[in-house]
Amino acid sequence: MNNKKAVVLISGGLDSATVAAVAKDKGFDIYALSVNYGQRHSCELLAAEKTARQFSCVEHKFVSVDLSAIGGSALTDNIDVPQRDNGKQSVGIPITYVPARNTIFLSISLGYAEVLGARDIFIGVNAIDYSGYPDCRPEFIEMFQNLASLATKAGIEGNAIKINAPLIDLTKPEIISLGLSLDVDYSLTHSCYSPSSNGKSCGRCDSCIIRLKAFADVGVNDPIEYAKQ
Amino acid sequence: MNNKKAVVLISGGLDSATVAAVAKDKGFDIYALSVNYGQRHSCELLAAEKTARQFSCVEHKFVSVDLSAIGGSALTDNIDVPQRDNGKQSVGIPITYVPARNTIFLSISLGYAEVLGARDIFIGVNAIDYSGYPDCRPEFIEMFQNLASLATKAGIEGNAIKINAPLIDLTKPEIISLGLSLDVDYSLTHSCYSPSSNGKSCGRCDSCIIRLKAFADVGVNDPIEYAKQ
Repeated sequence: MNNKKAVVLISGGLDSATVAAVAKDKGFDIYALSVNYGQRHSCELLAAEKTARQFSCVEHKFVSVDLSAIGGSALTDNIDVPQRDNGKQSVGIPITYVPARNTIFLSISLGYAEVLGARDIFIGVNAIDYSGYPDCRPEFIEMFQNLASLATKAGIEGNAIKINAPLIDLTKPEIISLGLSLDVDYSLTHSCYSPSSNGKSCGRCDSCIIRLKAFADVGVNDPIEYAKQ
Repeated sequence: MNNKKAVVLISGGLDSATVAAVAKDKGFDIYALSVNYGQRHSCELLAAEKTARQFSCVEHKFVSVDLSAIGGSALTDNIDVPQRDNGKQSVGIPITYVPARNTIFLSISLGYAEVLGARDIFIGVNAIDYSGYPDCRPEFIEMFQNLASLATKAGIEGNAIKINAPLIDLTKPEIISLGLSLDVDYSLTHSCYSPSSNGKSCGRCDSCIIRLKAFADVGVNDPIEYAKQ
């Protein structure tokens, strides 16, 4: 491989921890990027920091974008995160959807990759168990790839930056199995939309339910702490 | 028109002032968006605020994205802005290019439009006299339009948000003529890459040279103050 630099978007969740392990396994030097977008819970960024550390990143940049200024999501605004006690899948696009989040994240990572002269970006989106977010679909990633080829100096010069989304077709249990085979330490990750003040996961929001079910399907204990299950 | 809300990206420069006037003239209610991306000069955001005020915007949001954290441009880093005394056009993509800037700006405006339920975004890019930035070309805007249709809840529901770039094919003198016909007050705008501490434009950077030449071509005095010309 000629250019071993890769920008890896690390959110603190289990998907991005897995994708960082995949990039590392492919021999990339990891330049981690975490976006502080006005998350209501600082434990996400703390998890991002801990997650990145296990992959011996060359550097880890935190870029702040105050998406709470434009509002519109239960993850940045003072809107209650729905709890799911009845086991039913929620219908449509949930209120935890942050408008244009992945578009914004990928745009910033594109700028960072261009500055570094990196030719690869890794993002941990997946289209299955994706909570219904429009910007987690394969067609979205493909279109962003097209945009990246036009939007940058590198692209104009014939060196388009590649958007890698290696988890896009995997189920959550498959992602966890892949990560475990690459020695990901999932105790450092955080998925809960509604953690308690001491950082414990609620075990009841969509994100916790999906995570717990996936660990159960793999037959492994989820190593993080839950307030209740 | 069914939906009169439009998000207009306002930078404080003369292009975005003109595009705001075009949106207003088309009957849109303007929701101004300015991005504080770690510009070295606060007078840009001050000009954005003054510019927006003349269009009686419904609201004006300022979103901060610290692009200086990822570096790479004379406009956010401590790199000298080149002066152009010999009247020659610079060759290639200049160091004032901020990596992925318009991709990032449009992504944030997409999120804002989605939160508002707006169906239109206006951006003042133009491909002629564009200083050689890759993300000012028509093919970039078209591709972002494709992305916008996939990236958002509105797009999935069949109401893609339209990216309007009405200045894309205009020369700088044509932009100024259009703005003057719509009563734009260009004294409130700011274009200089390298202003003095009292906010006066340098008259020598690429942006000043293009601006001064355009006003001269139209046969109108540029109403802003210059340190020297």
